[in-house]
Amino acid sequence: MRISYSDLKVEFKRILRRLSFNEEKAELCATIFADNSLDGIYSHGINRFPAFVQYVKDGLIDVDAEPTLEDRNGLIERWDGHCGPGMYNATLAMDRAIHLAKENGMGAVALRNTTHWMRGGTYGWQAAAAGCIGICFTNTIANMPPWGGTQPRIGNNPLVISIPHEKGHVVLDMAMSQFSYGKLYQYDQANQELPVYGGYDDDGFLTTNATAIIQSGRVLPIGYWKGSALSLVLDMLLTSVTGGLSVQKISEKTKETGISQFFLCLNQSIDNEQLMDEIIRYTKSSELMNPSEQIRYPGESILEIRHRNQSEGIPVNDQAWAELLDM
Amino acid sequence: MRISYSDLKVEFKRILRRLSFNEEKAELCATIFADNSLDGIYSHGINRFPAFVQYVKDGLIDVDAEPTLEDRNGLIERWDGHCGPGMYNATLAMDRAIHLAKENGMGAVALRNTTHWMRGGTYGWQAAAAGCIGICFTNTIANMPPWGGTQPRIGNNPLVISIPHEKGHVVLDMAMSQFSYGKLYQYDQANQELPVYGGYDDDGFLTTNATAIIQSGRVLPIGYWKGSALSLVLDMLLTSVTGGLSVQKISEKTKETGISQFFLCLNQSIDNEQLMDEIIRYTKSSELMNPSEQIRYPGESILEIRHRNQSEGIPVNDQAWAELLDM
Repeated sequence: MRISYSDLKVEFKRILRRLSFNEEKAELCATIFADNSLDGIYSHGINRFPAFVQYVKDGLIDVDAEPTLEDRNGLIERWDGHCGPGMYNATLAMDRAIHLAKENGMGAVALRNTTHWMRGGTYGWQAAAAGCIGICFTNTIANMPPWGGTQPRIGNNPLVISIPHEKGHVVLDMAMSQFSYGKLYQYDQANQELPVYGGYDDDGFLTTNATAIIQSGRVLPIGYWKGSALSLVLDMLLTSVTGGLSVQKISEKTKETGISQFFLCLNQSIDNEQLMDEIIRYTKSSELMNPSEQIRYPGESILEIRHRNQSEGIPVNDQAWAELLDM
Repeated sequence: MRISYSDLKVEFKRILRRLSFNEEKAELCATIFADNSLDGIYSHGINRFPAFVQYVKDGLIDVDAEPTLEDRNGLIERWDGHCGPGMYNATLAMDRAIHLAKENGMGAVALRNTTHWMRGGTYGWQAAAAGCIGICFTNTIANMPPWGGTQPRIGNNPLVISIPHEKGHVVLDMAMSQFSYGKLYQYDQANQELPVYGGYDDDGFLTTNATAIIQSGRVLPIGYWKGSALSLVLDMLLTSVTGGLSVQKISEKTKETGISQFFLCLNQSIDNEQLMDEIIRYTKSSELMNPSEQIRYPGESILEIRHRNQSEGIPVNDQAWAELLDM
């Protein structure tokens, strides 16, 4: 079935209000969950919402917490999220980084002690909408073995970079694992092979079998040793600038909470519309690997899905919708 | 044969002085070429030096050029490198970013119209030595097909992130291609298979055969679609903030010159020595994939090679050394 954006958002907000989210936080978090669904990121929209609610019920997210400015290292502001809703904290942090960038060319917020921001791309779109180049990243619980190891010791630490572009912002939102666990479960349930190697099986062989990777826990970093190193360095950077918890310390808890994030904005001072068009056109001018497919810039397909879901409604699993109405 | 660091540097400097490099530039560039060799990055040390000299002789590098500050976007300074020696421009740019970071918590220099910086890690080590987190990246000539394409339209756009750590700075220096062309030629000459897929052959199959990849030109981005997207976004960011040339515009020239670079520094305000030790120890605590190998942090093996080459001399190909003496 397809549900309209506004109907979906109304339900999210109703449930959040019942969980004691105040009006402002309920509105913001409901909007982000609905936007994620609208953009086709269902894994962080309606499909994630029940898990988020459970986190709140388990007391892992403090709905009343407000982020506080702790100190400043020059233009880098250091905030404490007090384990409030991750989407709320991240939105405020990026908003503050945008504000600082408008004043000083660039601005940064180092946020510690926050919770899962859901879809990182949200904050990339936010920066781009404000005419800023946005860069942000987060650490996570250890969910990937470092290169050379077999047990998870690094996070998939998603990295977001966005470039303002009127015709469609360019928004990269990528985790350091070749596939997220969400994607692996999807392929597992559909009994499909991954398009490229996604990890190792229990015998240490690279495999496209999602079931074998879920079983071994040996998810593959992008670019093997390279993604492993990038994940490690992002965690070190986060721990250094936020004064918050590293992947290790987060992993010592039973559930992922108290994580560290960094938000950097550069104010876009050059009118780059034509430049971006040229770069996109040039990139797309490469002969195609498969004539039935296209070369895309990051964010391009999201815009198409968004427009389709806006006009036709958001595809929602019948059971998920029934459960949402029942919450 | 092994040559001492000082003997190697003396030769580099002698040749640069003969090419009309002034004392300061010759000293700096000779030091960087010697350091790259000392650190085991031979591809950007003695093995690259003759190509650099040829670039100078061909007039693609202006030895007399001095970078100039063009304007400021708040705290982001925009410089023009006037196609001077890339290593000199990059060192001055990172130095300026460090200076700004010490004053304001963070600092950034956007550099356009510069030339190849040789080994990106150089400027990561430079920032870390000054107690700063350093982030820098460059664009290049198109040398990799975008995901979904078969013809090169994106650069391998190396990204460097460094974290200060007294016991050994953590320095990530990675291009967006799974293997550099230098590495591919190495495997090709040794008739060895790559350890993982490095690209596609002419028939569109993923392969570990370096010869087939050199033939097709279809180098693989790290993480397939992910590295392709990251490369594209870095080029857009560079073009936006520097006002300089994109990968496309660089590729319209016959040789790679007039490239764009960005240098960002965050002043390290927290004493993070113990934190970094903990993260490294935790990462290394993963059970090993291969008991005869180790889990390494980026920069770790460089430090070992550096110490060995310092005490035993730098391994140099006999012919390369003879040619250098003859230049």
